[in-house]
Amino acid sequence: MQRIITLTTDFGLRDPYQGAMKGAILSVNPAAAIIDISHLVASANVLEGAFVMHFACPYFPDGSIHVGVVDPGVGSERKAILVETKRYLFIGPDNGLVSLAAKDDGIKRVIELENARYFRTEVSDTFHGRDIFGPVAAHLSLGVDPAELGRPLDNMTGLDLPGTEIDGSEIKGEIIYIDTFGNAVTNIRRDEIRNGVDFEISVKGIKLIGVKRTYSMAGKGSPVALIGSTGFLEVAVNNGSAAQALGIRVGDKVTLRAIGPRVIDR
Amino acid sequence: MQRIITLTTDFGLRDPYQGAMKGAILSVNPAAAIIDISHLVASANVLEGAFVMHFACPYFPDGSIHVGVVDPGVGSERKAILVETKRYLFIGPDNGLVSLAAKDDGIKRVIELENARYFRTEVSDTFHGRDIFGPVAAHLSLGVDPAELGRPLDNMTGLDLPGTEIDGSEIKGEIIYIDTFGNAVTNIRRDEIRNGVDFEISVKGIKLIGVKRTYSMAGKGSPVALIGSTGFLEVAVNNGSAAQALGIRVGDKVTLRAIGPRVIDR
Amino acid sequence: MQRIITLTTDFGLRDPYQGAMKGAILSVNPAAAIIDISHLVASANVLEGAFVMHFACPYFPDGSIHVGVVDPGVGSERKAILVETKRYLFIGPDNGLVSLAAKDDGIKRVIELENARYFRTEVSDTFHGRDIFGPVAAHLSLGVDPAELGRPLDNMTGLDLPGTEIDGSEIKGEIIYIDTFGNAVTNIRRDEIRNGVDFEISVKGIKLIGVKRTYSMAGKGSPVALIGSTGFLEVAVNNGSAAQALGIRVGDKVTLRAIGPRVIDR
Repeated sequence: MQRIITLTTDFGLRDPYQGAMKGAILSVNPAAAIIDISHLVASANVLEGAFVMHFACPYFPDGSIHVGVVDPGVGSERKAILVETKRYLFIGPDNGLVSLAAKDDGIKRVIELENARYFRTEVSDTFHGRDIFGPVAAHLSLGVDPAELGRPLDNMTGLDLPGTEIDGSEIKGEIIYIDTFGNAVTNIRRDEIRNGVDFEISVKGIKLIGVKRTYSMAGKGSPVALIGSTGFLEVAVNNGSAAQALGIRVGDKVTLRAIGPRVIDR
Repeated sequence: MQRIITLTTDFGLRDPYQGAMKGAILSVNPAAAIIDISHLVASANVLEGAFVMHFACPYFPDGSIHVGVVDPGVGSERKAILVETKRYLFIGPDNGLVSLAAKDDGIKRVIELENARYFRTEVSDTFHGRDIFGPVAAHLSLGVDPAELGRPLDNMTGLDLPGTEIDGSEIKGEIIYIDTFGNAVTNIRRDEIRNGVDFEISVKGIKLIGVKRTYSMAGKGSPVALIGSTGFLEVAVNNGSAAQALGIRVGDKVTLRAIGPRVIDR
Repeated sequence: MQRIITLTTDFGLRDPYQGAMKGAILSVNPAAAIIDISHLVASANVLEGAFVMHFACPYFPDGSIHVGVVDPGVGSERKAILVETKRYLFIGPDNGLVSLAAKDDGIKRVIELENARYFRTEVSDTFHGRDIFGPVAAHLSLGVDPAELGRPLDNMTGLDLPGTEIDGSEIKGEIIYIDTFGNAVTNIRRDEIRNGVDFEISVKGIKLIGVKRTYSMAGKGSPVALIGSTGFLEVAVNNGSAAQALGIRVGDKVTLRAIGPRVIDR
């Protein structure tokens, strides 16, 4: 079976870097199927990259090889790792970048990338995407056994989604990701919101009544809370940007308060 | 034959959305050949998306599957459709997005996407690109018969290019698309412009003499009218932006006036 | 063997142009493996495009076909060329765009693209990427002999990296490329910097001591000189933008002065 290689980086799309990384992959496996998830993660923002991978990777077929490179510590003592999960292989620096997506899928083992036989002949101190992570992914796509790549590690640097707090009829959470549309994604999962109960959502001093199904259930330009496509509660503005209209930023607090049996407004 | 799947969306390139959609396609057909036309259509701008598809789709090989997702009405009552044309299959929301390109190629039938067997198991209310349009395209690329997907529709939401008016020796048109270079594309087609006749082009209060062949036939920084690569009359500035230099916007009026036998300046 | 086709253009990613070019390639070879190096070269900036190709192309497998389209002279008398090098085929306008990468690989012959049999049936005056360069690349990927495409040329328009000057213990160079991170790449190559010698680097009135291995060897927000992944000396700011922090632009002068035996700070 063709194993797909996905890329999530902060390399941008103007410079030669993502192209060079793809060249290095194709030099190992000229038939590699490379799919870009994003090269526009904010520079050195490991947490943002982790969310992008967390939200996109689970939709790929079993056996996909997910490579993440947001790597401010490149060339320092941080390790390079492979994480084998139930369905996937994740590759990247050991800085938490791949940890959210990997944990979500169920980690089987972590291996430190040590075997230089699977790296580019010359390894720079500044571009491990091209010199280590890409070539390793390409070798894996050709069927190399992960155990060949290095020794098992007992642990890795892990990120966690900030936890929610449940306090009586209230769920307290926060904004974890703001997308390009200005939709503000919270850390409150779909399954934390009881069916048949209605909620008042408070964020940045405004209150929204009800978790809606779609953006268009609010008037144009009006704010709306809904379960977004990520599976998390989102605060949005229909045909607008919640981030701009409400001044929302990552880290802002969000409170859901149950206000009684749900009014069925579907 | 390998059927190519093209994507035209307003998802942007930073967020996990276009990646998730590709994952959903590849989960159905791991060998799918996916080509990005654009993910940078202005948010919710169906008309802009329709022009991008209209200008790019005709260059793809017969049998290509063109998916468009600019979908402000997602989750509402708007239908999801497949349009079979002479050479292609178009898939998207029934909001006009695919209509310009589909009409241009010659519509054979329109089918409402109803058969959930070809959708993702869980269909969200907010992301039909990932949950419906992508998987349907993937199934079609594997050879599923369009008739399997739902029942025929008698009509669909159609957009039309704004019409030109011919008034004696004048053609009145308007700007329909401004590209990233600042070139302003009009709705006046190449074949509306008589050969051997010269024209005066009026736009935003300035007058240009002659429809040129190339940008470089004007001095650097000077405005020029020419038949652009889209096959439509364009107003440009050589090595500059007509949109900025002349303050041109979509919808601005353009007039061509025949001024006599064409001066051959090739 | 599958021959990869890479694309480096200034078409941007929003408009239909890069999609149309890919369609034209796939219409000739529906199984073509197309890899984007960049479509975000600054508009009409041939030198920037030449650097992007110079930095990215060498990482691709032997036999790759590298297409460059930054083409302000399209439709004028500038020639269209194929450059066969030791490992690659380069295709583009004869304006220097492909010359840095081609010379670096070792030029074997230059051919003018004349044989319209390998172009699109209709060739526009404004979009040779779609109508000439893309289709020619696709035919070459199917095994067409370069000699079929036109007659050999004795020379082509060449760019050169600006030279460095060596003056006693000083190397004088300049900034040739600024990447999206704000890292400023100079024209001083790794092998011009003697091992075991330490250097003082002067740029924009500031002085940096030592050529470091990694960005993280400077404090956060501090400037650092290092050999970047391009193989050239770079001026950077750890977790920041040297271009912004120091006001560096392409063309700014950089001086390296040997200051004695290298302090081993690895």
